[in-house]
Parts: sequence; structure tokens; C-alpha cells
Amino acid sequence: MDNRLKQQLDFALEIDKEKNIFRQTHLSGYVRNENDAEHAWHMAIMAYLLREYSNEKVDISKVMLMCLIHDIVEIDAGDTYAYDEENKKTQAAREKAAKERIFGMLPKDQAKEFMELFEEFEAFETPEAKFARAMDNLQPLMLNNSNGGRDWREHGVTATQVHGRQDKTALGSRELFEVIDSIIEENVKRGNIKDQ
Amino acid sequence: MDNRLKQQLDFALEIDKEKNIFRQTHLSGYVRNENDAEHAWHMAIMAYLLREYSNEKVDISKVMLMCLIHDIVEIDAGDTYAYDEENKKTQAAREKAAKERIFGMLPKDQAKEFMELFEEFEAFETPEAKFARAMDNLQPLMLNNSNGGRDWREHGVTATQVHGRQDKTALGSRELFEVIDSIIEENVKRGNIKDQ
Repeated sequence: MDNRLKQQLDFALEIDKEKNIFRQTHLSGYVRNENDAEHAWHMAIMAYLLREYSNEKVDISKVMLMCLIHDIVEIDAGDTYAYDEENKKTQAAREKAAKERIFGMLPKDQAKEFMELFEEFEAFETPEAKFARAMDNLQPLMLNNSNGGRDWREHGVTATQVHGRQDKTALGSRELFEVIDSIIEENVKRGNIKDQ
Repeated sequence: MDNRLKQQLDFALEIDKEKNIFRQTHLSGYVRNENDAEHAWHMAIMAYLLREYSNEKVDISKVMLMCLIHDIVEIDAGDTYAYDEENKKTQAAREKAAKERIFGMLPKDQAKEFMELFEEFEAFETPEAKFARAMDNLQPLMLNNSNGGRDWREHGVTATQVHGRQDKTALGSRELFEVIDSIIEENVKRGNIKDQ
């Protein structure tokens, strides 16, 4: 086997570890916590299905790839809960080191491509990054809502916190944000999200 | 919310169930069985990374989407183990009913698109279907090999059975099949795959 293919297959095996990174979100039915690989899979399909609601025209295959790889860094950096302000302070540094080690396993051209794609997602400036981020926000909200908002209740999450995150969804999709907004309102009304 | 968006979101929530469909393959490290959503996520990334080894030029975003959705039918039909000849007899009928119910939840245009994409994968005729199938074969073989072939040993799988499945990989990628072939040989030599 030549070295290029060996590097690609070593990377392919390495990312298997993403299936062991568990998130705070629970699967629908509250069966168990969701892991990053499942979350990424779900986001990529939702991106394709819902692409007509993107505010701007997007290269959908780029969005899908972004969704698929955006959490690979968490193999080393761990999952940082959206409302964990303490851990969010060190998140960027942890994820930078992880990005260099993990994507650095790939042949140079692909390492560069994946690092850039990850950075583009993080920078949240291009239409693709904004729409991928909208999926990153909508997907767990959808699961949590299907579970009667239990994840929000258990973490004592406030409306300000949820809006702080979800308002960014509007930059990717105003139409999907309307749905999200009404889900938030409903969950505030039911006491699942604290009204502060 | 209009009916089209409601149908799309209902489908998006429904496919969450794919995360509860467990396969015979174990994650690397033999931590636990892998589920269909994780498997699909892994395949889609591998397809993108390894596309240069496809025998024929492929529309890679179509291959990725095929990888992502190819096991959705198993939400109803269940996973059929590659070497379970008894259950394979009823697999087609179970998956047809599942396809109609699950993809049928989508708006008509998207239901048609997803059903056709699934059928294309199953028919195994186009370059995209052949390359996606190569990923469907390579991904679990890679995990199983990383676990010292334990899944093969525990199921008493024979070289004839593994070749019956993996020889199809060559139709998608001759270069990747060479790697697979040497992995099979190695595992036969070590007694992980029965030599018959």
C-alpha cells in the first residue's frame, strides 16, 4: 500500500473515535445521550433536505461535508456544552491542537482542505458556514423539543441562553428560525426553559 | 408552519430512530456494536476522502448522500447481517415496505428523489452505487480488522462468504479491493476467517 492511501486509511480509522464522544442532547425518546457522529450524520441529511430554506444560495455538498467533519476535533478536545461558559473559554485552544493533530494525519492536500473547511465553519462568515450552523442548532433543539424539553430543564437553561445560541440560526435561515423561535416560546411557556 | 416544512421536519425527527438500529460490527476497540447512523456517517466521509480510487468518475455529493440514506429503511426492516442467509431471503420485501413508509413521509418530490437514490444504491449499476457499496464493504472490514477479526471469529465466517461480499468492492474500486484482499488473506492466515 502506498503512503498516501495508508495515511487516508489511518485517518478513517482514527475518526471512528468520534462515536465515543457523547453530547448533552438525548435521542428522541430519551433513550440515551447522542454522540457526535450521529449528530453529524443527522445534520448532513437535514442540510440537504432543508437547503431550500437557506437565506443565501449554498454549495450543498460543501455544507454536507462541513456538517460531517465539524466535530472531529472533539475526539481530542471533548464536547463543550453550548451553555457551559467555563469550558467555552478554553474551547478554541483545545480545538486548534486537535485540528492539527487529527487532520494532520491526512496527506497534505487533504489535511489542508479539511482544516480550512473546519475553520470556515468556525468563522461563521460564508453562506455554507451559516447554513451548516443553522443545522447544528436546529438538530438538537428538535430532539430536545421531542423529549418535552427535558435537556433544558435538567440543565436549568434560560431563554437568554437559548436565544444567544439560536438567534444565529436566523443568519443561516430566517424561515427555519421562525420555527425555532416558536418552539422556544412554547417551551418557555411550559416552564422547560427558564424565562429570565 | 406550512405543510411542506412540517413533512420535512417530521421526516427529520423520524430518522433519529436509525441511531437505535445496531449492526453486528463493533466499533474499533470492541467498545460496543455500531449503529446504522454512525456507519453511514463514517462511509460518507470515507467516500469523499477516497474518491480518487473510484474505478469510474463519480458525482461525489451523490455518493455521499447515498451513503447517508442507504440504511434508513432499516428503521422498519431491521439490520440484516451480511452473512445471515435466512434473513436475507425476506430482506427485499421488508425494505420495500420500509422505503415506502419512511421516504413517503417527505413532500412528493423529495420522497421520489430519496426512493430513487435508495433504489439506485440497491441496483448496484451506476458508478455512484458501486463506489458507495465499496464503502459499505470497506468500512466494517476496517473496523473488524482493527479488532483482530473478532466479529468474523464470533460468527464463524468463512473466506468464501467474505469474498462473496467483498469481491463486489472491486467493481467500485480495484485499488481499494487490493487492500481488502490482503486484509482478508491476513485474517485467513491468522484463523480469524475460516479457510474453506
